[in-house]
Amino acid sequence: MESIKVFAPATVANVACGFDIFGFAVDNPGDELILKKSDRKGVRINRIEGDEGRLPLAAEKNTAGIAIIKFLEFIGEDGQGFEMDLKKLMPLGSGLGSSAASSVAGVFAANELMGRPLSQKDLLPFAMEGERIACGSAHADNVGPSLMGGFVVIRSYEPLDIIQLKTPQELYATIVHPHIEVNTKDARNILKREISLKNTITQMGNVAGLVAGLMLPDYDLISRSLVDVIIEPIRSILIPQFDDVKNAALENGALGCSISGSGPSMFALSKDLFTANRVGKAMQDGFAKVGIGSECYVSGINQAGPVVLG
Amino acid sequence: MESIKVFAPATVANVACGFDIFGFAVDNPGDELILKKSDRKGVRINRIEGDEGRLPLAAEKNTAGIAIIKFLEFIGEDGQGFEMDLKKLMPLGSGLGSSAASSVAGVFAANELMGRPLSQKDLLPFAMEGERIACGSAHADNVGPSLMGGFVVIRSYEPLDIIQLKTPQELYATIVHPHIEVNTKDARNILKREISLKNTITQMGNVAGLVAGLMLPDYDLISRSLVDVIIEPIRSILIPQFDDVKNAALENGALGCSISGSGPSMFALSKDLFTANRVGKAMQDGFAKVGIGSECYVSGINQAGPVVLG
Repeated sequence: MESIKVFAPATVANVACGFDIFGFAVDNPGDELILKKSDRKGVRINRIEGDEGRLPLAAEKNTAGIAIIKFLEFIGEDGQGFEMDLKKLMPLGSGLGSSAASSVAGVFAANELMGRPLSQKDLLPFAMEGERIACGSAHADNVGPSLMGGFVVIRSYEPLDIIQLKTPQELYATIVHPHIEVNTKDARNILKREISLKNTITQMGNVAGLVAGLMLPDYDLISRSLVDVIIEPIRSILIPQFDDVKNAALENGALGCSISGSGPSMFALSKDLFTANRVGKAMQDGFAKVGIGSECYVSGINQAGPVVLG
Repeated sequence: MESIKVFAPATVANVACGFDIFGFAVDNPGDELILKKSDRKGVRINRIEGDEGRLPLAAEKNTAGIAIIKFLEFIGEDGQGFEMDLKKLMPLGSGLGSSAASSVAGVFAANELMGRPLSQKDLLPFAMEGERIACGSAHADNVGPSLMGGFVVIRSYEPLDIIQLKTPQELYATIVHPHIEVNTKDARNILKREISLKNTITQMGNVAGLVAGLMLPDYDLISRSLVDVIIEPIRSILIPQFDDVKNAALENGALGCSISGSGPSMFALSKDLFTANRVGKAMQDGFAKVGIGSECYVSGINQAGPVVLG
């Protein structure tokens, strides 16, 4: 195979109570990437669509590029050349794991073209290198679910220990991306470095409840557990209309609603597609009240991770 | 029915990573309690065995007594008199939920004698009142599992939200009670009130991992998740030989080993009875090296909670 077109899904990290440990993938949006073998050594990015010119074309500075470079080094094939076209089908800096989707698409495509020397799970460290370039730290709560699909728990970073949870089929995600910008680094810097023991206990209870709720499954338990007393109270300040939008989601039947990753996108979970759509409309209306436009994405929990499109 | 004899199980609270949110019941040890209806109004404690004279005989100061009094008030039957005999079959102040087992035995017996006006789960608030008398706070991580059996998650205290998890049948608990004393209030007072965000994240990962590990079941995951970076490093200082005893448990095949409740008892989990027994021997040897005697209890995870003996 000389050329491949792949899709990698966007992701919701943190999922209310699970800062840095929970994430899930969605069917829509995501990134498309075309990778071609080349006789010229090195990785070259020909074209990036949908980024409004904001992403670097230099491979070693690009999240997909660096993931491929690190992968080729690891398998001892850094003599192999590649050309890449990237199509961003989601907003950048939106809290939907845009950089993770690109990293995953890149390393997944390269592994396919090289005849799958590594298993899909073993591609994770290379995709995480992409995150390091994009965010300054090699976190896994976006690349994990984007690469593996489903709902994942990052139990540990050192050593990396990722667990995939089965989620109920009727669970739907609504994501609303308001047209405002929050820088990921800023969103991390405003967090408190010390948490009260009381809030830690509350959060642990919700973490345990959400895992049990998803596995049983028990929708009421999922709903009661989608509560974040540590991060949301701080980061929500950066999102205008946060309380209104969240309340609108809950009043329209969402199981829970919080910030997607470091924001500004917000997500909700619902137990059927009809509710998930209604919730999306209500959330968009909440932003529109103060003149903030938004996109809305509704999908099931993506179970496949990256896929070959052609 | 005029008289009843019941048993309520001892419990391991916290379970390494789950401070104040996890607890499980064991088949052995526990408390036996005989309750008889009486024509004289009020609850009278005739006799307590096995407490070396340390527990109060005044019903309103006794954990079992107060639980029964609060229960009778709630159901509007505080005119009903009771006489009680309590047989402590476990050490006091040992970190095995001694006060919780007495509370649960008392309120369970009273509910039976009154014709079960309340469901077993609804007895929890009255048993928690017993804990308030004994420990100064109405915590639920011992009374929850003692009353409901199995492995429980206290997702929330306000409102009280307790989830029961199925545990694998091959899971065995080893409990070793060294002959030293740790006061529960002291064990709480030495804890830090602020936790680093980093440790909170690590602990949340282990909480999620332990719930998933028990439910899947996945013994390796259970083992990797039985890690406590918040409480154990502080409380273990109060237990001589802690590191030696823990290492002995792990070297002999335990999935994990930590402090039971606020100590000084230590527990281990193992994936078969043979290992659980070997682990117990090794843990006792660890204490014996410095001349500390101990009792060892090995049992499966109790699934029944309190039972009627006759």
